[in-house]
Amino acid sequence: MNLQYAKRMDNMKASEIRELLKVAAQPGIISFGGGFPAPELFPVEEMIAVSKQVIEEKGSQALQYGPTEGYQPLREAIAKRMEKMQAFVEAKDILVTSGSQQGLDFSAKLFINPGDTIILEKPSYLGAINAFKAYEPNFMDIELEDDGMNMDQLEDALKTGSNVKFIYVIPDFQNPSGKTWSVEKRKKLVELGNKYDVAIIEDNPYGELRFEGELLPSIKHFDTDGRVIYLGTFSKILCPGFRLGWIAASPEILNKYVLMKQGADLQSSTISQMEVAMFLQKYDIEEHIEKIKEVYLRRRNLMINVMKEEFPEGVKYTIPEGGLFTWVTLPDHINTRDLAARALEKKVAFVPGGSFYANGGHENSMRLNYSAMEDDKIVEGMKLLADVIKEEMK
Amino acid sequence: MNLQYAKRMDNMKASEIRELLKVAAQPGIISFGGGFPAPELFPVEEMIAVSKQVIEEKGSQALQYGPTEGYQPLREAIAKRMEKMQAFVEAKDILVTSGSQQGLDFSAKLFINPGDTIILEKPSYLGAINAFKAYEPNFMDIELEDDGMNMDQLEDALKTGSNVKFIYVIPDFQNPSGKTWSVEKRKKLVELGNKYDVAIIEDNPYGELRFEGELLPSIKHFDTDGRVIYLGTFSKILCPGFRLGWIAASPEILNKYVLMKQGADLQSSTISQMEVAMFLQKYDIEEHIEKIKEVYLRRRNLMINVMKEEFPEGVKYTIPEGGLFTWVTLPDHINTRDLAARALEKKVAFVPGGSFYANGGHENSMRLNYSAMEDDKIVEGMKLLADVIKEEMK
Repeated sequence: MNLQYAKRMDNMKASEIRELLKVAAQPGIISFGGGFPAPELFPVEEMIAVSKQVIEEKGSQALQYGPTEGYQPLREAIAKRMEKMQAFVEAKDILVTSGSQQGLDFSAKLFINPGDTIILEKPSYLGAINAFKAYEPNFMDIELEDDGMNMDQLEDALKTGSNVKFIYVIPDFQNPSGKTWSVEKRKKLVELGNKYDVAIIEDNPYGELRFEGELLPSIKHFDTDGRVIYLGTFSKILCPGFRLGWIAASPEILNKYVLMKQGADLQSSTISQMEVAMFLQKYDIEEHIEKIKEVYLRRRNLMINVMKEEFPEGVKYTIPEGGLFTWVTLPDHINTRDLAARALEKKVAFVPGGSFYANGGHENSMRLNYSAMEDDKIVEGMKLLADVIKEEMK
Repeated sequence: MNLQYAKRMDNMKASEIRELLKVAAQPGIISFGGGFPAPELFPVEEMIAVSKQVIEEKGSQALQYGPTEGYQPLREAIAKRMEKMQAFVEAKDILVTSGSQQGLDFSAKLFINPGDTIILEKPSYLGAINAFKAYEPNFMDIELEDDGMNMDQLEDALKTGSNVKFIYVIPDFQNPSGKTWSVEKRKKLVELGNKYDVAIIEDNPYGELRFEGELLPSIKHFDTDGRVIYLGTFSKILCPGFRLGWIAASPEILNKYVLMKQGADLQSSTISQMEVAMFLQKYDIEEHIEKIKEVYLRRRNLMINVMKEEFPEGVKYTIPEGGLFTWVTLPDHINTRDLAARALEKKVAFVPGGSFYANGGHENSMRLNYSAMEDDKIVEGMKLLADVIKEEMK
């Protein structure tokens, strides 16, 4: 048997990262590798109450098919909550998706013919790069400075890129770098989008998890033409197990995403949507988010403190104002894939940074997650990691 | 603003069927249009118990990310249950999907370059045709006889088609025709798959809902090379609101689907998978399926009886041995799209048959669903429909 697969499958190789994360999930490993939220913060008691109430009140309706666009009360609640990011949309502008990962897949499916260009940050989210690759794009990655993309490089890319379809950005506490775009660059990004008539995909899973400074307006806030497509998710502010996220977009664009959703999986889970809608109605999610932020700030500090004290000179790292990740840059000659193997021997895991570069290279970086491990494990693991790095740089 | 979308979007027009089904969902309409299972048969009490127990026992684990392949106890239960269709697979051969619709989308994504050929039944499932269209295939549709495809036509298509990648079939109580493949043709299909080295997608949402005759072995049963990809779902034997289905395939192929799942939505809902796994463990789903079959048989009979008594001469229909649908063929000059509009005036809905033909035409057919309406509504609606047809054929 010699089945012929689609050409796109050549781009979708088994990721070594996935294998690494499987090892990292084994008991006894201190993992800074995944992007898991802290499970001990999940509102389990509230979810017990909510799941009971939903099925008792809604009965068979909770178990039946529902509209492709999503459960109406949930769409309304999402639209309302987006005011917090200063994005003003209505329920009709929302499509409920199976996590924001589905929004990434759909976005490339919507815009990309093989060979079309996606502009994205350098580095950018590994899961987005992999989802996009299935549609055979050309990537132009733009230097990510401390306050967002290098705008000159971005405009150059818009001028010279062939069939640029969209600019993909994670403006708040970016995965993997932990960096946040300034207000100025947000405005400028929309201006450039307008000037060159391309779509902007704003992926914002972490924006509400700001534990220092003030919430900045989303890029969607500055959208004048309806070209900014906003991807949101409940994974980091509530829990990821439901697989619920959303796309907010202007009517013409949203309608195309809805058609795509219909073909891809008809709709997201009826019962899960009802449960999240009821959670939002019965409980104070803002209070819940405050709790998450408190814990993540403490964990970030624990991680950064060890880095300050133990990491050798020549190692740089970001101090994120929110979110789940910090990003470490080692001297050029260090390969973090090798380092990851040695760290695993000491039962510490992280994700080597090279995979976050759409066009490869940059093997001297690494992403560290501080949300998923208990406080003492963070300190213990970071000290072990510091030892491995010191050994490597000796 | 004039955004340029991917070429595939030209194939994904808003379906008039979707609009029709929206109207059909309004209160007061007797709808034979959708493919909804009977909601009054959903095991609501059991689901209340199960959802309570899952979250109490599993706690935060039920709300966290899980493996892309699916929740292991659910994969095991699925593999075990497939013995009923005489398909012998193991847990490792199963990928849990968001409904079998996702399996359809993934299958075209896995195999189809623009212009490649998909062979399918004539007619075939509308939702599959739409999902496939996103990948810009060429369709070769093969006459569906009472016992399966016309095998000569099929072999011709395999010989002459350009880049035939897979044969897509719904062998049991097909949507829309209600027809079932004979054992002989199942065997022959696998032989031809082997001879011409193409994959076979066996979509089997209804197979267990056989209320007359004996369960036939699945096509997967005859698979010698591991080229049959089996799509299953809990939507029709339990409930669709969870959006849980599965793909069973040989290791090389399944691995590619897993990569695809990772990019598309990471995984299906953790908590829903745990709930379905616990339902299967605590309750007797076979007993539950017996109840469904009893009701659907009764409803099929009610529908067929009105057709026998009231439909004018020259109207043909199938008498399905299971599943949810019967298929009506009117004289050539009748256009069922017009008929649907007139039926809606009398508050009766159905799906015009033309949409089930991948290459168009055949506007004189219609699909009727008998699972979703209460008994008396079926009789009332069918009489109204008979009047509309008689009026049209006068």
